Amino acid sequence: MKKVAVILSGSGVFDGTELHEAVITLLAIRSNGAEYQCFAPDVMQMHVVNHLTGEVAENEQRNVLVESARIARGEIKPVTECQPDNFDAIILPGGFGAAKNLCTFAVDGAGCSVNEDVLTVCRAFAEAGKPAGYACIAPALAAAVYGSQRKVTIGNDEGAAAGINALGAVHVDCAVDEIVIDTDAKLATTPAYMLAGDILEAKAGIDKMVETVLAMN
Amino acid sequence: MKKVAVILSGSGVFDGTELHEAVITLLAIRSNGAEYQCFAPDVMQMHVVNHLTGEVAENEQRNVLVESARIARGEIKPVTECQPDNFDAIILPGGFGAAKNLCTFAVDGAGCSVNEDVLTVCRAFAEAGKPAGYACIAPALAAAVYGSQRKVTIGNDEGAAAGINALGAVHVDCAVDEIVIDTDAKLATTPAYMLAGDILEAKAGIDKMVETVLAMN
Repeated sequence: MKKVAVILSGSGVFDGTELHEAVITLLAIRSNGAEYQCFAPDVMQMHVVNHLTGEVAENEQRNVLVESARIARGEIKPVTECQPDNFDAIILPGGFGAAKNLCTFAVDGAGCSVNEDVLTVCRAFAEAGKPAGYACIAPALAAAVYGSQRKVTIGNDEGAAAGINALGAVHVDCAVDEIVIDTDAKLATTPAYMLAGDILEAKAGIDKMVETVLAMN
Repeated sequence: MKKVAVILSGSGVFDGTELHEAVITLLAIRSNGAEYQCFAPDVMQMHVVNHLTGEVAENEQRNVLVESARIARGEIKPVTECQPDNFDAIILPGGFGAAKNLCTFAVDGAGCSVNEDVLTVCRAFAEAGKPAGYACIAPALAAAVYGSQRKVTIGNDEGAAAGINALGAVHVDCAVDEIVIDTDAKLATTPAYMLAGDILEAKAGIDKMVETVLAMN
């Protein structure tokens, strides 16, 4: 049975992992006969967003690993414990957490920094030639990890696409229910909620991404 | 297009709505060609549980409506705004929040109290003869709402089943991938993560529950 490392970034679209994308990813992994282990960095979130009002909750602080544990039902490990040797592939769902907590792309664009432990793990999968899937805004992180002309998509947002190109990757416009594959890098990306108007649209692209990642070897 | 009111109880299995169950429910509603609106009570959670350690975070307080908004991507309303006239059915996913925040079954068993606004809405659907689905531990709340010999299941947990019977309902043991239907009450229940060892097992029962609720009229 293939084993997938899933990297989370909190719990909630505006300051963490997008919850629909995360659960759809876990479902797709299991539906394709593989299993998963969730990981997240043990760092504080960039901020906490009140998801009812959309405003930053100024006095709140939350930890990325602790909040990500909500998605994993407690079965999660610090990303520093993710050994690529033990996995066949790596997948990162989206949500602003990918661009706020795993890297700073949401704030700094192409000048973003990437959490070192996340970068180490993602690079290790890339260097080992193991397949990877990134959804929603997480492909911006993929651009920082892979760089050098790798093809990725976040849909068709011009600002984000320019940032990705500035990071050295090549942004390719993509429909919500499709994926972009960089065959040499074994890298599949999909827009998910960067474009999805609905949970079914997000599912269509993520299902294709997960299936493709599990089929690459 | 049929419209379903989905009542949430926070965001995370140990102190709120179980996230896999919630997302699977939303997916199933849309996959069956219906649409949903999420609601939650605007009250504080019974407590906040650190999902990494499983321990209560003594100094933290979170609001059920605000946290539930994470699942609904901000598109949520206070449960007091739920008018049964505007919906064809009501569904409650599980997670401890259903038994800690919507009612106090997790602490008080058959002596539990139910949040008044939640009780009002759930009763209104029952009295209007509109179909309802409750998953995981939420059927304990259904017992408090429907009572009087209505058949419900939370799987096969003897303690919870005894509490449900003491509330006046009739607990029926049920496999994880099955549902119990009380035809007269138009009430479908399924064990979900009361029994599920895996997200696919939870999905099997919830899919049947949602499909059944949408087929009843």
